[in-house]
Amino acid sequence: MARRTGRRPGNPDTREAILAAARSAFAEKGFDGASIRAIAAGAGVDPALVHHYFGTKDQLFLAVMDAPIDPGTLIPDLVAGGRDGLGERLVRTFLTIWDSPAGAVGVALLRSGINNDWSARLLREFLTSQILRRVLAGLDLDPAEAPLRSSLIASQMAGMALMRYVLKLEPLASAPAEAVVAAVGPTMQRYLDADLSAVRAALG
Amino acid sequence: MARRTGRRPGNPDTREAILAAARSAFAEKGFDGASIRAIAAGAGVDPALVHHYFGTKDQLFLAVMDAPIDPGTLIPDLVAGGRDGLGERLVRTFLTIWDSPAGAVGVALLRSGINNDWSARLLREFLTSQILRRVLAGLDLDPAEAPLRSSLIASQMAGMALMRYVLKLEPLASAPAEAVVAAVGPTMQRYLDADLSAVRAALG
Repeated sequence: MARRTGRRPGNPDTREAILAAARSAFAEKGFDGASIRAIAAGAGVDPALVHHYFGTKDQLFLAVMDAPIDPGTLIPDLVAGGRDGLGERLVRTFLTIWDSPAGAVGVALLRSGINNDWSARLLREFLTSQILRRVLAGLDLDPAEAPLRSSLIASQMAGMALMRYVLKLEPLASAPAEAVVAAVGPTMQRYLDADLSAVRAALG
Repeated sequence: MARRTGRRPGNPDTREAILAAARSAFAEKGFDGASIRAIAAGAGVDPALVHHYFGTKDQLFLAVMDAPIDPGTLIPDLVAGGRDGLGERLVRTFLTIWDSPAGAVGVALLRSGINNDWSARLLREFLTSQILRRVLAGLDLDPAEAPLRSSLIASQMAGMALMRYVLKLEPLASAPAEAVVAAVGPTMQRYLDADLSAVRAALG
């Protein structure tokens, strides 16, 4: 039925049903565990219709999160420069997005993620599958350490967003982006590069 | 009237009126700008009664925030050891509190702070006046850099709390405290010690 009207908007009820089924599947099973087949079944439609309306599983997840930006289009370029200076590039790109009108969506995502467990799980999956995994994918890192490095990177990034955009703690709140890059970039670089053997020993 | 019944609970309506007046004064004028005299006037009581019910301005602020722990009793000991290793001691103490039942109050504070501007201002004042200022007070730091260092410390601390206790990103969420200390301690130490001249140049 939707084919005649083109890819968007399609039937709004069908779209909503797919989004609702996708939201619960991603929250319950995670991004990797949620299949398009199961999402389609949850919405009572054919899997082909899910692809027709939303494209790939990544794109469906971006639609669920109302993400204003597709990290999949930004991150490969960022990582292509290699690990040298990646800490600063990560912070700079992050700030470019958060200082733009898209930042309001970021704050809303953070807010919903902190407000209930359901949104927290979605936000965690979004961070992991759409951002962190892509950042680390192009780097030659020990796979046993990658999740630790990415959770540390996420902690500094999210905390910076919290202080700069939500709690508005000065001077971080109104500092020019390059000052934040100079201050926080080396932390990100350390989380990419540092010897984590002491941390891994304590992890057991 | 309250004198006969001792310091607590006193008249519940009077207590509530003082707390409400204090809450708006701290949010509107900040901790330093809010005077006991103005808070008493806002509640329609004598300033002596505010002291009688709540003690010092710091204690009144702790009551406003429902803080389960008085940072003023913890931080001086922490800082007394000097700047060496303070990064790790800060993370360790923070985790001891957040891993305890008091952590639930921390999550609630973070949640309310992120949900509306009013609570965000209170939380920012709490961070600044009750925690960060005390951490930096005992150290021989350039006063021009202290606010920058404390906002960076706060960003990493809050982000770590967000990932470990709210979004529950692994392995940070279930790592033993000492693994987190080993991973995040050096970042805190860097924010205490690092040469910030490049950051200050970018701050203008």
